[in-house]
Amino acid sequence: MSTWLRLLNSWKLQTRFTLLNHINCIRYSSRISDELLDKARSIVGDNNFTISEAARLLHGRDESYHVPLPPDLILFPTSTKQVSEIAKLCTIHKIPMIPFGTGTGLEGGVGATRGGVTLNMTRMDQILEVSTDDLFATVRPGVTRSRLNNHIRDTGMWFPIDPGADASLCGMVVTSASGTNAVRYGTMKENVINMEVVLANGDVINTSGTDCRAKKSSAGYNLTGLFVGCEGTLGIMTAATLRLYGIPESVSSAVCSFPSVYDAISTATMVIQAGIPVARLEFLDDVMMSACNKYSGLSYDETASLFLEFHGSSNSVEEQAELAKEIAKDNNSGEFQWTTDPEERSRLWKARHDALYASKALLPGCEVYITDVCVPMSNLPDVIVKSKQAISESGCIAPIVGHVGDGNFHCCFLLKPGDNEELKKVREIAMWMGRLAISARGTCTGEHGVGRGKIQLVQEQYGEDGISLMRNIKFALDPDNIMNPGKVITL
Amino acid sequence: MSTWLRLLNSWKLQTRFTLLNHINCIRYSSRISDELLDKARSIVGDNNFTISEAARLLHGRDESYHVPLPPDLILFPTSTKQVSEIAKLCTIHKIPMIPFGTGTGLEGGVGATRGGVTLNMTRMDQILEVSTDDLFATVRPGVTRSRLNNHIRDTGMWFPIDPGADASLCGMVVTSASGTNAVRYGTMKENVINMEVVLANGDVINTSGTDCRAKKSSAGYNLTGLFVGCEGTLGIMTAATLRLYGIPESVSSAVCSFPSVYDAISTATMVIQAGIPVARLEFLDDVMMSACNKYSGLSYDETASLFLEFHGSSNSVEEQAELAKEIAKDNNSGEFQWTTDPEERSRLWKARHDALYASKALLPGCEVYITDVCVPMSNLPDVIVKSKQAISESGCIAPIVGHVGDGNFHCCFLLKPGDNEELKKVREIAMWMGRLAISARGTCTGEHGVGRGKIQLVQEQYGEDGISLMRNIKFALDPDNIMNPGKVITL
Repeated sequence: MSTWLRLLNSWKLQTRFTLLNHINCIRYSSRISDELLDKARSIVGDNNFTISEAARLLHGRDESYHVPLPPDLILFPTSTKQVSEIAKLCTIHKIPMIPFGTGTGLEGGVGATRGGVTLNMTRMDQILEVSTDDLFATVRPGVTRSRLNNHIRDTGMWFPIDPGADASLCGMVVTSASGTNAVRYGTMKENVINMEVVLANGDVINTSGTDCRAKKSSAGYNLTGLFVGCEGTLGIMTAATLRLYGIPESVSSAVCSFPSVYDAISTATMVIQAGIPVARLEFLDDVMMSACNKYSGLSYDETASLFLEFHGSSNSVEEQAELAKEIAKDNNSGEFQWTTDPEERSRLWKARHDALYASKALLPGCEVYITDVCVPMSNLPDVIVKSKQAISESGCIAPIVGHVGDGNFHCCFLLKPGDNEELKKVREIAMWMGRLAISARGTCTGEHGVGRGKIQLVQEQYGEDGISLMRNIKFALDPDNIMNPGKVITL
Repeated sequence: MSTWLRLLNSWKLQTRFTLLNHINCIRYSSRISDELLDKARSIVGDNNFTISEAARLLHGRDESYHVPLPPDLILFPTSTKQVSEIAKLCTIHKIPMIPFGTGTGLEGGVGATRGGVTLNMTRMDQILEVSTDDLFATVRPGVTRSRLNNHIRDTGMWFPIDPGADASLCGMVVTSASGTNAVRYGTMKENVINMEVVLANGDVINTSGTDCRAKKSSAGYNLTGLFVGCEGTLGIMTAATLRLYGIPESVSSAVCSFPSVYDAISTATMVIQAGIPVARLEFLDDVMMSACNKYSGLSYDETASLFLEFHGSSNSVEEQAELAKEIAKDNNSGEFQWTTDPEERSRLWKARHDALYASKALLPGCEVYITDVCVPMSNLPDVIVKSKQAISESGCIAPIVGHVGDGNFHCCFLLKPGDNEELKKVREIAMWMGRLAISARGTCTGEHGVGRGKIQLVQEQYGEDGISLMRNIKFALDPDNIMNPGKVITL
């Protein structure tokens, strides 16, 4: 074996050994000396530093069901320079550092698995640049999706990617978020032009080159591609330059019900195949439609339904709706309602907009455990139907909503707070669904990311050689495993 | 400094030392023992092995002006297993391995900088799968763009990315190619669903997970993103799954001339801002238009011109053309000719289709040195005008054609064969243009890649910290620097 392979392997072994130590002495590694606290405080200033119990609890959890894991302290950096100094400090002392945005994640990505420092990025909240000629905006990590869209509304532009929550845009980048508009505008992977990232050693890099704003590039490794979806395990994002789009001249919205999941998904598939540039193509199952009728006082058929939205010129959105109507009819649809009138559109889509609240209302006082998978559209009906069977056999309540234009859907499991038996059952079904999706040539998560919740499933999806490659990349960028440790992959 | 940083640094230093040795003893490292030749031959079989002088010369060069660097031997693997065995053999003996497709690259990406083994991938030429429901095709590296499109024509689908040359699709993936349709359909970065890659150690991985065909995923690191554009320096691609699109129901084509580069590019910018889903948006400068008139017996205005193409329903393509016509008129355009008639469309676009041949005809017997840059559209007119000035001051002839919907353009320098003075001058202008693009917030290469030609420019675009990160990734995946060494970055 070559010197280099030997060196590489010994390096990996020793790293593993260090990690074992970390695990064996969590108490130690999560104890931060007063001297270190003072150094950290001096970087960000007294007002941007806290070790309060309440703040630590708040920063140890997201919106998921994962056990909260509080950090030892929270810093609120206000500049890239501060983030870089914090990284250098954490590297010297082997202290984990975890980035925190709006805390709207769903897979436990912000938990401090080994204690350490959480960097709350919300005080770096400048919109640095908006270009109407070049259709991009550069934002700091504290800027949320809705804030950017409010800020640029008068320019006639918008940022369409919409995961539901009003997440921070940089949080959306690092979890590779997408949502309802992805079928037309792509996911975050397709909408990042450049990122500023602070590495573990404190280096500050720009993933497409210093100040590059070109729409495309084939210069050097695709670092932008690599950092999208890294969940803070390879570096901490301090700015992102995102593509903007012109606000469509016209929008038409449509709703239609079907006798079966198969008919609904066949319609979705044929709409895509026909090249209709549909902007939103959402599926709600019978349980969700029933919940929406109850919650919003509507009278939709309580069967598999599609909610569609089309963007373009006024002629184009009418034509797209009519074409989709023909396709739906060929798939045994009920009445296909569509309109371009803004008030009518809101009424038609009310069920979809209220879906999450409607779900919760099915079990008053409940909380919601959401999981997502994504598969090729030809396998989507089977995977949805099998999931519904498993859910009903388990006795759980879990309405389904899906971005089916991408083959992606979510189960919203309703849980009585504190019912650990039920929670265990739901976790088992979620794991089973991930494996079902992988076996159907799909992925265990379409847009929620891995966090702590899907590490095992990602391992099964990639196999040992794929995970070993990810580990090599992780080791190369973060040899001490201090960047959001315990997420995405096990080492 | 931590044990790990020390180990990492010593590892880097030793690697650099090894690389220096490689460079100091090219003769040694490029001499392959008879025993090794026999082992290589036994992996692929006698008919898939050659060390002939002619074959070595052919495989040492692409279509660029870089000095040919022949490998020591050429293997024609016919399976992923063979590629994996070759990688293991090359790793044991520290022999460079260089993948070779159609040899249509433009930046010297296939030269054997330290000798070694070239893997000619053209005998792995199966179209493994085509899915009409899920709109993807999986191909081996020997499948070219036109072969895939001929194969699927009857399905009503096509793969739109068109770099001009009939390149191999996997070659297009590893150079992050794009071309005329990228403004609507994206570049290769946006159109790869999964890849099978053989790593330096012989491991075979799938970048999106084993057999994954999901349209989107947030499971694990974005390996697909990382390997697109790696130019064979991180691994050798043995299969790619690509997105397909429905062949548009209708197409309209348009041509229009403008009094100035500024008017033409303003039109292009406003077409994009207006959200017109233009499929092709090409710019030809006055020199190129004059060449096309001469070559094809046409009578276009010999000024800055735009060639546009629109895809969609018959109504939609007419509406798009009319909208673009209005925008062009507001920018002082000449007559805006457009049509949906196939024969008329060919006539209108003849100049664009013949552009390369027309350029060559300006200097009979010449060869063409093409360079490309990409900048934000607001900086595009200045960069084009300054480039034209530099070209005319140098006395060179270099018609310009650009995919200006993306801010990307090419200068086609005409060279008398053997005129090294002229070649030196052109190289200097190309370097100057790369720097001009970087200073205009762009990239030194929009779609040609780095190869050997733009390593220095990539270094200037990313700065030392960015390049150091790329080196860490390279070291992690290829510790012996045997995967297409001497390309993309210096170590």
